[in-house]
Order: sequence, then structure tokens, then C-alpha cells
Amino acid sequence: MSQLIAVIGGDARYLELIRQLRKLSKMETILVGYDKLEQGFTEVKQMNFFDLEPSELDIVILPITGTDHHGNVEVIFSNQVITLTEKWFSELKKSTLVFTGMMNDYLKNVTEKHNVKLIPLLERDDVAIYNSIPTAEGTIMMAMRHTDYTIHSSRVIVAGFGRVGHTVANKFSALGAKVSVAASSIYDLARITEMGLTAIPLDRLSQHTEKCDVLINTIPAKVINKDSIQQLPSHALIFDLASIPGGTDFEYAEQRGIKAILAKSLPGVVAPKTAGKILADVIKQIISERKG
Amino acid sequence: MSQLIAVIGGDARYLELIRQLRKLSKMETILVGYDKLEQGFTEVKQMNFFDLEPSELDIVILPITGTDHHGNVEVIFSNQVITLTEKWFSELKKSTLVFTGMMNDYLKNVTEKHNVKLIPLLERDDVAIYNSIPTAEGTIMMAMRHTDYTIHSSRVIVAGFGRVGHTVANKFSALGAKVSVAASSIYDLARITEMGLTAIPLDRLSQHTEKCDVLINTIPAKVINKDSIQQLPSHALIFDLASIPGGTDFEYAEQRGIKAILAKSLPGVVAPKTAGKILADVIKQIISERKG
Repeated sequence: MSQLIAVIGGDARYLELIRQLRKLSKMETILVGYDKLEQGFTEVKQMNFFDLEPSELDIVILPITGTDHHGNVEVIFSNQVITLTEKWFSELKKSTLVFTGMMNDYLKNVTEKHNVKLIPLLERDDVAIYNSIPTAEGTIMMAMRHTDYTIHSSRVIVAGFGRVGHTVANKFSALGAKVSVAASSIYDLARITEMGLTAIPLDRLSQHTEKCDVLINTIPAKVINKDSIQQLPSHALIFDLASIPGGTDFEYAEQRGIKAILAKSLPGVVAPKTAGKILADVIKQIISERKG
Repeated sequence: MSQLIAVIGGDARYLELIRQLRKLSKMETILVGYDKLEQGFTEVKQMNFFDLEPSELDIVILPITGTDHHGNVEVIFSNQVITLTEKWFSELKKSTLVFTGMMNDYLKNVTEKHNVKLIPLLERDDVAIYNSIPTAEGTIMMAMRHTDYTIHSSRVIVAGFGRVGHTVANKFSALGAKVSVAASSIYDLARITEMGLTAIPLDRLSQHTEKCDVLINTIPAKVINKDSIQQLPSHALIFDLASIPGGTDFEYAEQRGIKAILAKSLPGVVAPKTAGKILADVIKQIISERKG
């Protein structure tokens, strides 16, 4: 018997995801919120949200952004207003898997209450690491666009050595930048040194920003503070990759006339196809594991 | 006694060059063709072309483009029409050095005839290799802009393993692309293999383009021909970095609906400051060698 997948809302990344889902055997995919899409998909059914019967669904795929705090779903390719109410979740089968990019309290509470399994994809280590690749490429593109010098030979400081910081440091170094990484743990500082990069204890960041052309933050906390910004040369750039509101004192950067950019969802901007494939690969793997 | 340098014409790259020339001791720099420049330079004199006395000049720096076939010089920051006639060259001192980016027959003939030393900077190996860095970064930026997938994991074929091809192959590989390089000499094919890349004999290129996302040409000859283009997948991109008119059958690419871009002077576009510094470093070195 074939299983029913409903993709409810989503952006350009989901076009590749949908393309990949079509290849699954014994799966039927229904799209909700794609009625304004110019280029249709063969072998995939479109449906209005109100015609969708939650009790029949085996798998629900929500947008990267999940829902807002009232259950509203972001739809790019439709004018429909789609609200996933608590009642809607209560009608799902117990075995239904709900995929989302990000999770919030609303989604967490409503799925827990009704015993539905929620899988926040972006919180998975594998997705975060794969996604760090287009994030790093997007940062490279921004750096190329906003500077009049090459990345090669430029002095780059990356704050943070998590899943994104590690990849960003790697890629800039691969292009010939002189990369330093600021981190807290002695484990990270050792790894940074092993990689041939300059390790900076995070609490001493401001002592190093004087010799920096591009400062890239990946830490979701106020680490790019006045002290660090004050020492930057006036031509320096700040890219903040941490989730909103970032970790930069943007107000102070502006006062000093230093350009600081809070970059949002670079994978979707720079490589929607790859970003969609990353999600599809993980979803397919999870589905097949459950079947097995 | 201080020497006199005249910078006659030039584009954004020359602003960094001029900035660097100011640092030279015992040198006086005169700018010609910069009267519309908003941001002036301290310690540098501006002059109208007609007030310039060729017999007093020790060093003449022409634009990257040199002159046209009538001796006209490209000026970006001025409305002056500047023509370097044969008479003008005849009035230079025998010891005068004339730097240009590119050389043409006019410049070659007129300097040879009047025994003036002409140095075409872009023909020097060191300049070409340094310039290949911003060229490669510009190619990366174009690839990011024109694709919806990451450079990481994409299949890139570079045609040519000269000064530009070598750097381009290196940089795309550093970003995680699967890079093949097409070259003719067994020496190059061995080096490509040593670098961990896939070596393709140039005459068999068309047998490999079927599995290619981005095809980058660096050879100034018609090597990206119908056979090679025919095999490309429809989403593939062609970037042609060879000097005008490039080495691609653009007409056939268009017929097949494959985007093919002839990229011009990427260093000046993507990193004018670095490009200017490259020229300045070589000019300073040549000047200091002569002094010594």
C-alpha cells in the first residue's frame, strides 16, 4: 500500500525536494500551497488545504520556517492562508511523521500533546553540516561583492567554531585567506591550530580585530561588541551568520561607519537546489529507516 | 634628484597603483586624465596632457589597455582626449621606461623606432600568475551567481592548464568541486593527475562534457566547439576566460540554449584594489632594479 506525503507550503528549496520525493517508490506526494507555481510537476497532485484529510496522511512536510505561533504556514507559491490548528494536528494518525525546518513552542506543544512525531530538520547535525557548505559559499560571494580586494591574502577572523564556523574557516582558508578563528574551548583552539589557522581565545577577540579585513560571526550571542568593532580598520566588513538578531552590535558598527551585514538563509539564496537536495536526502533516509 | 613618473589614463585599478607610487622615495608622480576623479590624492600633481613635457619624464605608465592603433589612451576619470603620437614618443628621453598593460603593433613600432623601452606588464609571467587569482575568484563569483547549486560537489571542467587554468582548477577544487582539466601536453596531464584532479587529453574533451555542470575555457583558440557543447547537459554553464573573442562557439551554445559568458577583465571588476597592487608591486620592483 502506498504512503501519502503532504508538502504544505515551502519556498524555492522545496522544488528540488519535491522533485526528489517523486522518485520514491510506494509514495504518493500531494502539494498544498503551490497553485501559483508556473512550472508544474508531473506525477504530483496539487490540492487545496481544505480538501486535505489529515487522518489520511503518513508524512507531513512543513516549510523550513515551520509555522508561526498561531500555526500559520509560510506559502510562497500560493495566496492561500494555511493555518495548522491544534484540531488539525489532533486528527493526524499517531504514526504520522511531521518534518519541519525549524521548531517553535507552538509546534512542539501541539505535536507533543497529540503524540505526533515532529522532526526539526535544521536541528540535526548532518543537515546543519551539509547546510554549512552553501552558507560558506554564500559568505564568500558576499565578501567578493563587498570588497575591492581578493579573498586570497585577506585577513579573515571567524568567531565561533561550530558547524558553520568550521566550514567557513575551511573555505576561506582554501581560497588563500589568512584565517584566524576565535573560540572558547581548548579543544576547539587545538583543532584550529592543527588546521594551520590562527587560534584566538574568544575573550581576547578585541586584541586581534585591528588586523582584520573581514570579520565573520557565527555565534548566536553578543560577541562582536564595541571593543572588537572599535579596533577594526575602517575598511573592514562584518558578516553575521548567526540566527536573528545576530551577535553583532550593529548600532555601534554603523556609528563607526563599518558595514555590518546580517545574512539570512544563505543556502536558500545561493543554492536553493542544493539546499533542497540536502533536506530531501535526510527525509528519504528517515522514511526508509522507518519502513525498514 | 627626484625622478618624474607620469600616469596617463587608467581605470579603477590605477587608484591603488597611484596610492602605492606615492610611497616611493625620490619619485614625483604626475596624473594625467584624472581631473574628474572625485576623491583626490594628496602629494600628487594633476596636469593637463598638453602641459606635460615628454622630455622631462623618466617613467610613463599607460593604462592596462595601452593605446589603440592611433595612439589614443583610454581615460575613465576625464573628458580629455589623449593621443600619444609618434612625435610625442620621439620626444621622450632614451632612458624613459614606458609601462603598459597590453601591447599592440602601434605601441611596439613607435617605441622601437624611437628607442624607448616598453614594458607590457600583462605579458610578464609573474603579473599573469598574480592576476590569475582575482580572475579565478571572479569566476567563482560568476558560478555562484548563475547556478542554483553549490560549487561544492559540482562537476567542473577547465580547458587549459596555463597560468589562468592552473589557478582556476586549484580554487574550484579547494571549494570541493569535482574538477577535471583538459590539456594537451603530457607534462600538464601528469601535473593535473598529481594534483588529484582528473586529466583529460584536450582532443578528447567532447567525450567528457556529458558529465559537466560548469565548463571553463582558458585557451585562446576555438576549443569549446560544437562537439563539446552538444554533449553538455542543458543546465550547464560555459565561462570563457580567454581574451576576446574567446574560444567558445557562442552561436552554437545559444542555439542549444546553454548559457555561455565571455568574461572580460575579471580582476578589475572583482578586485580592482588587488589588481592595482599587483601592477604597483611589479612596477616598483622594476624601477628599483634599474636604480640599483
